[in-house]
Amino acid sequence: MIITIIDKKRRRKRLTREDLAYVVSGFLDGTIPDYQMASLLMAITIHGMTTEEACDLTDVMLHSGERIDLSAIPGIKVDKHSTGGIGDKTTIILAPLVASLGIPVAKMSGRGLGLTGGTIDKLEAIPGFRVSLSETEFVNQVTEIGLAITGGTKNLVPADKAIYALRDVTGTVASIPLIASSIMSKKLASGADKIVIDLKVGKGALMPNRIEAEKLAYLMTRIGKQYGKDTVCILTDMDEPLGCKIGNALEIQECMEVLQGGGPKDIKDLVLYLAMYMIHMGTGMSYEEARIAAIEQLSNGEAYAKFEEMVACQGGDLSRLTVAPKVFSIKSTKTGFITAIDAYKIGAVVHKIGAGRSNKEDQIDYGVGVELTKKTGEFVTEGEELVKVYLHEHDLAMQEILDCFTITEHAPTLHPLIYGVIESD
Amino acid sequence: MIITIIDKKRRRKRLTREDLAYVVSGFLDGTIPDYQMASLLMAITIHGMTTEEACDLTDVMLHSGERIDLSAIPGIKVDKHSTGGIGDKTTIILAPLVASLGIPVAKMSGRGLGLTGGTIDKLEAIPGFRVSLSETEFVNQVTEIGLAITGGTKNLVPADKAIYALRDVTGTVASIPLIASSIMSKKLASGADKIVIDLKVGKGALMPNRIEAEKLAYLMTRIGKQYGKDTVCILTDMDEPLGCKIGNALEIQECMEVLQGGGPKDIKDLVLYLAMYMIHMGTGMSYEEARIAAIEQLSNGEAYAKFEEMVACQGGDLSRLTVAPKVFSIKSTKTGFITAIDAYKIGAVVHKIGAGRSNKEDQIDYGVGVELTKKTGEFVTEGEELVKVYLHEHDLAMQEILDCFTITEHAPTLHPLIYGVIESD
Repeated sequence: MIITIIDKKRRRKRLTREDLAYVVSGFLDGTIPDYQMASLLMAITIHGMTTEEACDLTDVMLHSGERIDLSAIPGIKVDKHSTGGIGDKTTIILAPLVASLGIPVAKMSGRGLGLTGGTIDKLEAIPGFRVSLSETEFVNQVTEIGLAITGGTKNLVPADKAIYALRDVTGTVASIPLIASSIMSKKLASGADKIVIDLKVGKGALMPNRIEAEKLAYLMTRIGKQYGKDTVCILTDMDEPLGCKIGNALEIQECMEVLQGGGPKDIKDLVLYLAMYMIHMGTGMSYEEARIAAIEQLSNGEAYAKFEEMVACQGGDLSRLTVAPKVFSIKSTKTGFITAIDAYKIGAVVHKIGAGRSNKEDQIDYGVGVELTKKTGEFVTEGEELVKVYLHEHDLAMQEILDCFTITEHAPTLHPLIYGVIESD
Repeated sequence: MIITIIDKKRRRKRLTREDLAYVVSGFLDGTIPDYQMASLLMAITIHGMTTEEACDLTDVMLHSGERIDLSAIPGIKVDKHSTGGIGDKTTIILAPLVASLGIPVAKMSGRGLGLTGGTIDKLEAIPGFRVSLSETEFVNQVTEIGLAITGGTKNLVPADKAIYALRDVTGTVASIPLIASSIMSKKLASGADKIVIDLKVGKGALMPNRIEAEKLAYLMTRIGKQYGKDTVCILTDMDEPLGCKIGNALEIQECMEVLQGGGPKDIKDLVLYLAMYMIHMGTGMSYEEARIAAIEQLSNGEAYAKFEEMVACQGGDLSRLTVAPKVFSIKSTKTGFITAIDAYKIGAVVHKIGAGRSNKEDQIDYGVGVELTKKTGEFVTEGEELVKVYLHEHDLAMQEILDCFTITEHAPTLHPLIYGVIESD
C-alpha cells in the first residue's frame, strides 16, 4: 500500500486524502518506516503537490493531534506567525501592543532549534517567567488580561514534529507544499480566528527569493480560506539581523525599548506594519487608523504596561533580567559604508557563545549575545565600534565577528523591509 | 555532506565520482542511514543519471567488494545474465551447450527471492548437487571440464545487496541507471571477458515496455564497453511462462529434454538465439556457423554429456531427481484459442504450492510445480487438459489456475520471442 502511494507520487500522480491519511497515521504509529517516508517526501519535494493535495495534507496533519479551543474568549483572536530569523523578537512586542487595544492575543510559541533561541527561550530569560501554562491557565489569562504567551500546552500536530524531523535530515525541507502544510496545520490547531504570517525572504531565511515566497504565501492563504480563516502573508526582508540586539536577555531589553517608544528603526517599522494588519483584522479599523493606534500605544506607555502585566501574571521578574557581565567592544578595521551584515554568520557567532542549542537537551546561556552598534547603510571609520559582545567565559575570535560585516567605499542601495502582502482572496 | 549530495540530485545537478563513492561507502558502513539513502534513491529515480554518473556508480559498487579472477582459465570466458522470468531455465541448458564447444563457462548464479526458484535452487533439486564451490574449486573445475555453475563464492558487490534491499521497499526499483549499475557491477565482478544479457520485456518482467528496455540495454552496453568487455543485450518476450514446466525439479527435467534435442519450441528457440551470440563472442565463428554448431550439439548428445559431466563433478545424482507424486490434471472449461497465459499468475500459483520462497529462510519444495499442456496460440476444447499440477499436500484452488488462461474465439496474434539485439558499439 505505501509502495503504491510512493509509486503514484513518483509518477507525478495526485494523492488522495485517503492516501495522505494512510501515510500520516502509518508514519506516526511506526508501521511506515523512516526510509519509506523519506522516499515519499523526496518525490513530493521534486514533483510538488496540487493545492488540493496540500489542503488535504494540512487537514490530515491537523487531525493527527489535539486542538486548542479559544471559543470561550470573547472577541476576534488574531494569531501571528514568523518563519524566523536572526534577531526576530517581534512576537514579544506585537502581542502586548495589539492586546493593549483590547484585541485578545492567545499566542503559542516555540523554542529555538536553529542558531538562536525562539520566543519561548527569550521569555525564559526573564527570571521566573512561566512558559508552560496549562490550557485552562492559558485561556483564563487571555480572558482576564487579554494576553498570554505560552509554549506548547497540548499535543498539537504531532505529525508535523515527526515529519519535520525527518525532512530536516533528508534534504526535503525546500518543498512549498510541505512547508505550507507544516505552518498552517499548527496555526489552525492553535485555534485563532485570523492569521498574520511574517514570511522572511533572503539569504539564510526560509525562502531564498520572492518568487518562491509568493508561491508559499498564495498556498497558505488558500489553505486558511478553506477553513474560513482570513490569512495574510507579509513578505519581509531577512538579509541582516532584525534590530540591534541578538541573544535572549538582550532581545528582551530591546523589546522593552520598542514597547516604550524607542528601539531600532527596522524592528519598529516591522512591528508597526504587522500590528497594522493584526489590528485591522481584529477590529475592522482602517489600515490608517490601525497604524496610528499602534504608534500611540507605543508612545503612551499602554503597550509596555500590557507587557508588564503579562510578565507579572506569568510570574516573571523584570528587575532581575541580566545580561552577561563581560562586554567586549569590537572596532572596525576599515573605513566605509556597511553594505551588508550577514545574518546567518551573526547567528553562528551568537550560537557559538551559548545563546542557542544544538540539541534539544542543550542549556541556553540567556545572558550572552551581541549588540550591533552600526547597521547596514551606516558609515563607519576605522577604530569606531561595530559591535558589543556580551560574554561569560567563552573565547571569541574577533575576526569571526568582523567577517559578518561587508564594508565598502560606496553607500549600498538598501532593500525595502516589506516586499509585499498576500491575502486570502 | 550527505545532505549536500541529496540536495544536488534534488536540483538535477550531476553527482561526481567522489559523491557516489562517499554515498556507497557511507551506506555500507552505516554512517548514512536508510532514510537518507532512500531520499537520494528517489531523487535519482525521478531525475535519472547521466551515462557518466551511471558508469561512476557501477565502478564504485564494483569496488565495494571482492572480484572473481578467471584469468587462470585459458580462453575467452562469456558470461550470461537473465533479468528473470517464470520458467526461465536457460542458464542450465546454455552453460553445458556452449561449454560442449570448448568455450569455458564459469557461471555464478543466484537463488530466487521472487515467485519461483533461481538457477541455484533449480540445480539443488538434483540430489547431492553442490552449489557452494570455493573459488579454487570453481576455477579448477572450469579449467578441467570447461564448465561450473555455483552460487556466490565471495563477497561480490555487497553495495548492490544493500541498495537493492532498500530500493525494493522504497518504490525506487524502476530506475534505469540503478538497474544498470546493479546488473553490470555484478557481471563485472564475476570476471568474464564478454557478457550476454537476456533482457525480458513484458507484463511482470523487469522492463514493462521496449522503449525502457532499449534505454537500459544501451546504458549497460556503454558500461560494459568502458571496461573493455563486449556486452550484448537481447530483448526477449516475457508475457507467458518460458517452456512448459515451472517448478524446480520439473524445470531440470525440461532442461534435460532440451539438452537431448527435444523440449518446447519457445525455450529451444531462445536457447539457440542466446547460444549463437555466446558462441560467436567466444570463438569468433559467424552467427550462422554458431547457430548450426549449437543445433548440432543438442542433437548429437554432446551438450547433454557436458551437463552430465558437470552434475557428476558437483556431486549430483540425476537418477534420484523426483517430482511430487500427486498429479492433478486441470481441464479447460471453455473451447477456443489460448490468447494469453499470465506468467505472473502462474508464478503465484507455483509459489503458493511451495516452489519458491517468501523469506530467505523459507524451505523450497523442489518436487512441486506445474506443466502447461497447452501454450499460447493453441486451440483447446472444453474438457481437454490445460495443465498438470504436481503436488505434495497443499490444497489447490482449480479456479486460480484456470484464471491464468485467456481463451477466446479467435486466434491471437503472437508476439515474436526476440524483440531485438543491442550491442556495445
